[in-house]
Amino acid sequence: MTRIFFNEVVTRDGFQNEPAFVATDAKVALIDELSACGYAKIEVTSFTSAKAIPMLRDAEEVMGRIRRLPGVETTVLVPNVRGAERALESRADELNLVMSTSETHNLANLRMPREKSFAGLREVIEMAHRAGSGRVPVNVSLSCCFGCPMEGDVPEAEVMRWADRFAALDVRGLTICDTTGMAHPAQVRRLTRALQQRFGSLQLTLHFHNTRGMGLANVLASVDEGITRFDGSLGGLGGCPYAPGATGNICSEDAIHMLHAMGHDTGIDLPRLLAVARQLPSIVGHDVPGQVAKAGLITDLHPAPAYVAELRGQ
Amino acid sequence: MTRIFFNEVVTRDGFQNEPAFVATDAKVALIDELSACGYAKIEVTSFTSAKAIPMLRDAEEVMGRIRRLPGVETTVLVPNVRGAERALESRADELNLVMSTSETHNLANLRMPREKSFAGLREVIEMAHRAGSGRVPVNVSLSCCFGCPMEGDVPEAEVMRWADRFAALDVRGLTICDTTGMAHPAQVRRLTRALQQRFGSLQLTLHFHNTRGMGLANVLASVDEGITRFDGSLGGLGGCPYAPGATGNICSEDAIHMLHAMGHDTGIDLPRLLAVARQLPSIVGHDVPGQVAKAGLITDLHPAPAYVAELRGQ
Repeated sequence: MTRIFFNEVVTRDGFQNEPAFVATDAKVALIDELSACGYAKIEVTSFTSAKAIPMLRDAEEVMGRIRRLPGVETTVLVPNVRGAERALESRADELNLVMSTSETHNLANLRMPREKSFAGLREVIEMAHRAGSGRVPVNVSLSCCFGCPMEGDVPEAEVMRWADRFAALDVRGLTICDTTGMAHPAQVRRLTRALQQRFGSLQLTLHFHNTRGMGLANVLASVDEGITRFDGSLGGLGGCPYAPGATGNICSEDAIHMLHAMGHDTGIDLPRLLAVARQLPSIVGHDVPGQVAKAGLITDLHPAPAYVAELRGQ
Repeated sequence: MTRIFFNEVVTRDGFQNEPAFVATDAKVALIDELSACGYAKIEVTSFTSAKAIPMLRDAEEVMGRIRRLPGVETTVLVPNVRGAERALESRADELNLVMSTSETHNLANLRMPREKSFAGLREVIEMAHRAGSGRVPVNVSLSCCFGCPMEGDVPEAEVMRWADRFAALDVRGLTICDTTGMAHPAQVRRLTRALQQRFGSLQLTLHFHNTRGMGLANVLASVDEGITRFDGSLGGLGGCPYAPGATGNICSEDAIHMLHAMGHDTGIDLPRLLAVARQLPSIVGHDVPGQVAKAGLITDLHPAPAYVAELRGQ
């Protein structure tokens, strides 16, 4: 049995690509319910421009209104120094920064070369480390670590190079992202082994998408290698606009259900989480990919048909 | 790299629960295309009563019209001696028999106690082994080996007991079925290890459902333990009427895609198989769960947005 830590990203990564605005009240209520389920961390929102991502224009209000529970960290996505100022003011427990290991994906997604991204994120890290209220830990999410939908292969050495540069800036954690669901279990084993050897003292989180059905197989491969931190999105909501066909993050409750069945401990109240997941379609206005919320736990039994009693013992 | 053998069950297990009849011509064309993709085996149809399963009322005609390719075995589901006679007449390469390791599931699904099922299947096995045209190999599919949706746990000893009884009748293979998607990877590892130790000389096939998202994780766990034979259903079609919420077999092309990405060899032409899979929704008249047919191979790249060229090298 291993303690596994989940970071729930539905209200940021999940909602970000939803067409219809989710009301601030609904966001706050959802995050409070997720906190009560026992997540280790919740990526609440993003301090980006309201024009770029209208869905997350209520970042300050959401951060101000959610209930902070002991043991549940809040993290927020921060694209630049201006976002970091807002995030620090909102008393986020962690800043999460993002750039891509693929030059083309970084240009497509962040509209600047990787070097420019890195320079901007370094400033943010320095600001967080000398925040007035005390040092705030920083996590860096590296996109496309298992391949780029436009470039193809991203060499392991390239992932290591960017990880090295951020490790040198004393970040607390790195999230290794399979942004468009290109990772397969053999690759996950190789890369997680290499990362753990080199960055054993950092918090290493794996972020998978289930685009090609391999999401939970990749979680299994990671856990086999000793990885204990994952991003997940309630209902499997999410996806990347620059990766056509990409259908979403791994579903938190499906991944947690599998890990619990295997005897691992996530600290999460799964029946309570399923109740929350079952509300998600009405919040976003459409069906979501998650399967356990529909099929039930493997321990949920069904009554036998009436004729079985008659046939028994024939 | 391991050679993995796939048995495609879409025209039997997949079609069996479809509401609208699939025309015989469409079945024959689909099976011929699947054969040409390089499957090791195809479960073509079932020699059951036309009343019980109207979808498969054309079993003789389908078996008579499909093209037999060298290296592609045909197997057919046979419920009883009458079905076995028809199957042998149709020159099936293998008979596949089915019963459940759960008494309640056997009563619900086959409407008789397990002992009665066993006695009937023993007769079929004896008939196949002294067939006029020569001994025909028999496979037995054991349902609910990872749990019963009505009884709950099915002890490993119970699975072993039924496997032992059929092994004693000299069957060629056993298919260990997760009929309603209750298996998790840790359980798969334990059971496949025990089965391989005891039945190393039999063909052991694993049959998973993706009801709770764990299908490909269970395939991965099986391959890790040395299992090399799997059932799969094109598009992930299928399910069990006595297991509410059960949403289907593992998707053949998604599983094969994962195994190829990991470097394994299935003998299957995956791009050709994806082309077949993309025809499936129009054959059955609805969307199917398979994901690779929608998202494309991990090696299918996408063009970068036009603005990327302008931004590059800034």
